[in-house]
Amino acid sequence: MSKPRTVAVLVGSLRKESFTRKTARALAKLAPEGLTLEIVEIGDLPFYNEDVEADPPANWTAFRRKMKAADAVLFATPEYNRSVPGLLKNAIDVGSRPYGSSVFDGKPGAVVSVSPGVIGGFGANHALRQSLVFLNVPVLQQPEAYVGGVAALFDDRGELVDDRSKDFLRKFIHAFAAWIERHV
Amino acid sequence: MSKPRTVAVLVGSLRKESFTRKTARALAKLAPEGLTLEIVEIGDLPFYNEDVEADPPANWTAFRRKMKAADAVLFATPEYNRSVPGLLKNAIDVGSRPYGSSVFDGKPGAVVSVSPGVIGGFGANHALRQSLVFLNVPVLQQPEAYVGGVAALFDDRGELVDDRSKDFLRKFIHAFAAWIERHV
Amino acid sequence: MSKPRTVAVLVGSLRKESFTRKTARALAKLAPEGLTLEIVEIGDLPFYNEDVEADPPANWTAFRRKMKAADAVLFATPEYNRSVPGLLKNAIDVGSRPYGSSVFDGKPGAVVSVSPGVIGGFGANHALRQSLVFLNVPVLQQPEAYVGGVAALFDDRGELVDDRSKDFLRKFIHAFAAWIERHV
Amino acid sequence: MSKPRTVAVLVGSLRKESFTRKTARALAKLAPEGLTLEIVEIGDLPFYNEDVEADPPANWTAFRRKMKAADAVLFATPEYNRSVPGLLKNAIDVGSRPYGSSVFDGKPGAVVSVSPGVIGGFGANHALRQSLVFLNVPVLQQPEAYVGGVAALFDDRGELVDDRSKDFLRKFIHAFAAWIERHV
Repeated sequence: MSKPRTVAVLVGSLRKESFTRKTARALAKLAPEGLTLEIVEIGDLPFYNEDVEADPPANWTAFRRKMKAADAVLFATPEYNRSVPGLLKNAIDVGSRPYGSSVFDGKPGAVVSVSPGVIGGFGANHALRQSLVFLNVPVLQQPEAYVGGVAALFDDRGELVDDRSKDFLRKFIHAFAAWIERHV
Repeated sequence: MSKPRTVAVLVGSLRKESFTRKTARALAKLAPEGLTLEIVEIGDLPFYNEDVEADPPANWTAFRRKMKAADAVLFATPEYNRSVPGLLKNAIDVGSRPYGSSVFDGKPGAVVSVSPGVIGGFGANHALRQSLVFLNVPVLQQPEAYVGGVAALFDDRGELVDDRSKDFLRKFIHAFAAWIERHV
Repeated sequence: MSKPRTVAVLVGSLRKESFTRKTARALAKLAPEGLTLEIVEIGDLPFYNEDVEADPPANWTAFRRKMKAADAVLFATPEYNRSVPGLLKNAIDVGSRPYGSSVFDGKPGAVVSVSPGVIGGFGANHALRQSLVFLNVPVLQQPEAYVGGVAALFDDRGELVDDRSKDFLRKFIHAFAAWIERHV
Repeated sequence: MSKPRTVAVLVGSLRKESFTRKTARALAKLAPEGLTLEIVEIGDLPFYNEDVEADPPANWTAFRRKMKAADAVLFATPEYNRSVPGLLKNAIDVGSRPYGSSVFDGKPGAVVSVSPGVIGGFGANHALRQSLVFLNVPVLQQPEAYVGGVAALFDDRGELVDDRSKDFLRKFIHAFAAWIERHV
């Protein structure tokens, strides 16, 4: 990186042994020097409700502050019912408001979707991209990252041990690093 | 209706003066005799997390019970960031699990999307339909219900006063009633 | 079937050895008695152009006549660039017009998508479903049919030889048969 | 522009009085100095068929050559059946092949959708964007360009006469110019 950059990572699963979270951690380790990935927690965000925007919950405010401090955003998502989990969509909704103060505006982004089955969360991946148009997030197009069959890729300690996946995810996070350089 | 039927209505907004909720209420009044629409509240549902499924939150259990008792489901949604609000998607996620016990399976459904702008929530409407494929909800195709310019349609007491919208929504809820008859 | 029914099959590939066409043929053989699948050719349809609707090309007219004679429609599609091929979309466009005379209106439908890779054409499958809403095609939701890794499923004569796929496709076409019974 | 650039414009309608084509022409006039928009015709492209790729139709070859010569690509599309016309999707399919020689790879892109109704082709606009991910087209996110109620915007000679639309389209094409500068 031309200078150090931070990526806020939103993880769409609350499971303790979440493969999505493990994938996010693996990406943090594979990132090029100077690119720091930090998971921003979203499990404690009250549902978005415009009525309370005048006196917003502390968790919303803290979340928005952390997101604004980041240079870029990575969405790591499982697929729930052919789309993104409500958990993750709510974080997007909270971060996008109030009107005119979106934390996402102009921030380069990328998407990695994760599933136990072979399809790798295609539905969630593209459903999310539709929101990123409105949010004005310039989003990395290639490589697309559909991580399928995820249960076989990690060892008991949660480390990514599948070499082919490791190569792919390294390529993905390096492509994202180049995308960030172009957009910040 | 050949016999009395109930429709569980999921409303994707928590705003007190929500136009989406007003639209749902208007539909309840326009429904044919024998078809009862009941809003099932979703604002108190903890985010879906598979880890707590062994001992599920009481709110999840109550929600699932109410949904199972209904004959059909109507999704009334605003558009947040070109998709459904996290709030509504979370209710779908909670209702769809645990595996093999989805409250939606085979239940006839319909979608109405609502927006202040002219587009009427097209993005939310279709994003939702992608989930309904997986959920095995046979979904009413026509008429599509995109309710735009919604601020001008209701009076101060929240009553639908726009005649054209009233005619359209009557047609919509009657088409849904016929769809329900075919699928229950 | 309660009485004999015909399904018009639209195949989204012109390749002579098209796996999509082979899949369509396999489905024809696996269909329950009384359900006949017939491929309606679409490779000779001029692009839709409203200007020539006053004196439509003979191929359009013949195509529309064949489609109207069918009780149901099956879309068998490869994925080109994460969506349906232009070839197949053009057939849909031609069949949908002129305004008020769509060949699809109310006709029960189903989608099978096919790909050499593992994802099985998810993007094409769901892109197509968005059109089916407008076309008022009640569409089979489950099972979803994503046929991946297709090169390994057929023998040299184009016969489906993979037992697991055969079981799945039999289940799919029988579910479609039941769906047709409900909607015609 | 830092240096002169050309944008290949693909128009998804063959109608002689196509509003989509008029919109494309209006954009050409509103473009900043140094940015030239040129419509590349697609109505004569045979349907994509991999079998003939060994000896491709002359129209395919000419189309691919013109597209490769451009610095960027603008998709101007009506909405047919909630998606892009088969005509336009076929041009994308032809341009994307043969494997490894896509004319779109890395080329900055933008989408404008056009409709007589109020929704402005939202369905076509986003359906197209799903293809652009695979095609590795970095696509302008904001402003989104949904041009609705299009019949009222042009005069008898096909000139854009609606001032609000003119302002919006000027803003759009200038944003695209800046996007091109960043990506070529």
